[in-house]
Amino acid sequence: MNKTIQSGIGKSALQLVLANSHEIEDTKTRVIESDYSFCTGKTGSMDMQKVVSAIETAAKRNEIIDETLYREMHALYHAILEALEGVTRGQVLLGDVMRTVGLRFSVVRGRPYENEAEGEWIAVALYGTIGAPIRGLEHETTGLGINHI
Amino acid sequence: MNKTIQSGIGKSALQLVLANSHEIEDTKTRVIESDYSFCTGKTGSMDMQKVVSAIETAAKRNEIIDETLYREMHALYHAILEALEGVTRGQVLLGDVMRTVGLRFSVVRGRPYENEAEGEWIAVALYGTIGAPIRGLEHETTGLGINHI
Amino acid sequence: MNKTIQSGIGKSALQLVLANSHEIEDTKTRVIESDYSFCTGKTGSMDMQKVVSAIETAAKRNEIIDETLYREMHALYHAILEALEGVTRGQVLLGDVMRTVGLRFSVVRGRPYENEAEGEWIAVALYGTIGAPIRGLEHETTGLGINHI
Amino acid sequence: MNKTIQSGIGKSALQLVLANSHEIEDTKTRVIESDYSFCTGKTGSMDMQKVVSAIETAAKRNEIIDETLYREMHALYHAILEALEGVTRGQVLLGDVMRTVGLRFSVVRGRPYENEAEGEWIAVALYGTIGAPIRGLEHETTGLGINHI
Amino acid sequence: MNKTIQSGIGKSALQLVLANSHEIEDTKTRVIESDYSFCTGKTGSMDMQKVVSAIETAAKRNEIIDETLYREMHALYHAILEALEGVTRGQVLLGDVMRTVGLRFSVVRGRPYENEAEGEWIAVALYGTIGAPIRGLEHETTGLGINHI
Amino acid sequence: MNKTIQSGIGKSALQLVLANSHEIEDTKTRVIESDYSFCTGKTGSMDMQKVVSAIETAAKRNEIIDETLYREMHALYHAILEALEGVTRGQVLLGDVMRTVGLRFSVVRGRPYENEAEGEWIAVALYGTIGAPIRGLEHETTGLGINHI
Ligand SMILES: [Mg+2]
Ligand SMILES: [Mg+2]
Ligand SMILES: [Mg+2]
Ligand SMILES: [Mg+2]
Ligand SMILES: [Mg+2]
Ligand SMILES: [Mg+2]
Repeated sequence: MNKTIQSGIGKSALQLVLANSHEIEDTKTRVIESDYSFCTGKTGSMDMQKVVSAIETAAKRNEIIDETLYREMHALYHAILEALEGVTRGQVLLGDVMRTVGLRFSVVRGRPYENEAEGEWIAVALYGTIGAPIRGLEHETTGLGINHI
Repeated sequence: MNKTIQSGIGKSALQLVLANSHEIEDTKTRVIESDYSFCTGKTGSMDMQKVVSAIETAAKRNEIIDETLYREMHALYHAILEALEGVTRGQVLLGDVMRTVGLRFSVVRGRPYENEAEGEWIAVALYGTIGAPIRGLEHETTGLGINHI
Repeated sequence: MNKTIQSGIGKSALQLVLANSHEIEDTKTRVIESDYSFCTGKTGSMDMQKVVSAIETAAKRNEIIDETLYREMHALYHAILEALEGVTRGQVLLGDVMRTVGLRFSVVRGRPYENEAEGEWIAVALYGTIGAPIRGLEHETTGLGINHI
Repeated sequence: MNKTIQSGIGKSALQLVLANSHEIEDTKTRVIESDYSFCTGKTGSMDMQKVVSAIETAAKRNEIIDETLYREMHALYHAILEALEGVTRGQVLLGDVMRTVGLRFSVVRGRPYENEAEGEWIAVALYGTIGAPIRGLEHETTGLGINHI
Repeated sequence: MNKTIQSGIGKSALQLVLANSHEIEDTKTRVIESDYSFCTGKTGSMDMQKVVSAIETAAKRNEIIDETLYREMHALYHAILEALEGVTRGQVLLGDVMRTVGLRFSVVRGRPYENEAEGEWIAVALYGTIGAPIRGLEHETTGLGINHI
Repeated sequence: MNKTIQSGIGKSALQLVLANSHEIEDTKTRVIESDYSFCTGKTGSMDMQKVVSAIETAAKRNEIIDETLYREMHALYHAILEALEGVTRGQVLLGDVMRTVGLRFSVVRGRPYENEAEGEWIAVALYGTIGAPIRGLEHETTGLGINHI
């Protein structure tokens, strides 16, 4: 079985943000069974800085990453930025181009490769809506960033 | 119920590419129940043109879009490009920067908004791996593009 | 006659922003004769959000688009963003990189294709100056975005 | 009179590519009266390199720039790239993302500022169509690049 | 001897920002011997506008460029922006994506080509750190922009 | 002493590509004294894939990275891409936009932080020329990418 695709760290992260309310417990159980640690949360803003900050804070508070180590923060940061590329699709801008997001996020950490020497990786998944700062004038958006840690 | 998030066109598209083999039939049934039409497929290449072409061809052959109408092709094209931004995260390049993708794709068409006047929309979801052109030197990647049609 | 090029929606939008004062009435007449509806305006700012907002507000007030329909706002929004790519040429940023714009804009709506089934499209044209926030330290800039509606 | 806007080098370049066949002679006369030198041409390709090359070759052959001086070639090159940002709106790619262009181009050289010390500048304007490599599946596009020389 | 590489304007600019304290005088002497004029400085901010402004101000105060001529300001501005692309590697954003820089900068002006007709060029070099707004959570970064003046 | 800046991994990488022939041995000695391992090389092409490949191959052959571990290849790959952003300043394209590079490169591996727990990092530095595919029509360019390994 190819773990990367069957129960990959990225797929796990995506399933955590895509799960509807009645599916969320099953999804969390499956991710834990894959030996991944994770946290989830919500963030909404026209200010990209707040989105980045919300994800970093959640990952630190839930001890998914060790905030005293720059290498862990660096791995997380680039995974967040890569996920935001998918959300923004071209220019990593929100309020500056008059749009806002409402996002669920997940940060997943673990060993997605069978070779133990590949070590730990981190995945950041985002799913929600992007659009004008007027309720309903929005469509779905997603993003996934993956990095070695 | 907020259809956009609960059974949104984007979420449907993502679930179609994320489903493992034993989940695929259930997922398809749910998408059909949401009154969306769709197609799915696979494409793998170092050549971005082949990826774009594979998705366009599948959408035409499965009559998800009417290839004789430019407005439909235009809607699909921009949805594909937006999905590729998520996959490539910065520069929409594959072989030129020495990387290759192996992707499942879905194209979903339908009415994601309760207001009938919002009409039809299209979603393109991509999920798979991106990495060096050497088996195993790759990680997961995803992208979602959404457009009115 | 190939309407797309001879009296295209994009060319019409560009001519509306390029016309000198003695040419503007003739230009408007020609655009009306092509069965396009349109509005024009001016905006100047170091704040990209104000530029986007000025164009959206003008298009809504002049009923070029129906602001209660997201599909129309979505079509307009992406046309604006594409036009701004031409104005900024690389990074859709103004004040953040210490530059300001003074722009005339036009929003044109209509049927640029002979095939009726192609339906309505929208064009956003921008023309003016970009440069340092000091009078005279600036050069011309333009941008055009086109979308199906 | 503010020459920059009234008969600016950028506006002149745009008018040369926008002129319909019965307007082209008048437009050229006006540009010559503004003491600008210029050349115009056409290029169509899925290969961006051919587009860049066609414009450079025309500017050299028509002696708009001195090809033995790198500073002139450098000024032209960056003006071309900036114009292509407007044409491509995000990723400066054609065939790689399955699209093609058919463009008219102009290269205009002269003194757009009243202060003689501002010296010579160059403008590159592009106007035409971009779309799928199938006739008719295309919409208009434009771009303008300006540089000191 | 190929001056471009041996004592190029870009290499000179980079050496000025890379020199450790005991090397700085020697480096300045070498740059002066190459007949370049230059200035150096430091800037640190989460606000990109302040970084651009600090470099422009230093270049004006030290009379590396003539601030009354737009062509000189334009040459400097684009050289700064190109240097910032190297520093930010993808999106020219700092605080918006929750990061800050501490940079040394140099602006060098002179004749890097043996052919006198190539005239004057300008180089902007940046070197320092980029990272989270927390001391130590940062790594090195550099950028170089070059333009004819 | 702040190792990051005084004898940082990025500064070391840059000095290796900037050193003139009579300085190269001293520079290598200093880098070795900082306990970094490294390799250097040259690559020139209009084809970005060849540039990426030349750097990857040198890093593998000189055992700077372990090519059997994807985490090491992944760290190197993103460092290369970040360095190329500095070289290309906007669009990571060479021949497609009619330009070529002649580059010296270095790959440096080691522990740039005093805290042992920060582990190993990798730096990729590039320095050389970029320009038209005609000898002499080129200017200097540089780029630096840094990643945890
Ligand atoms: Mg990666
Ligand atoms: Mg959209
Ligand atoms: Mg389009
Ligand atoms: Mg400019
Ligand atoms: Mg250049
Ligand atoms: Mg980094």
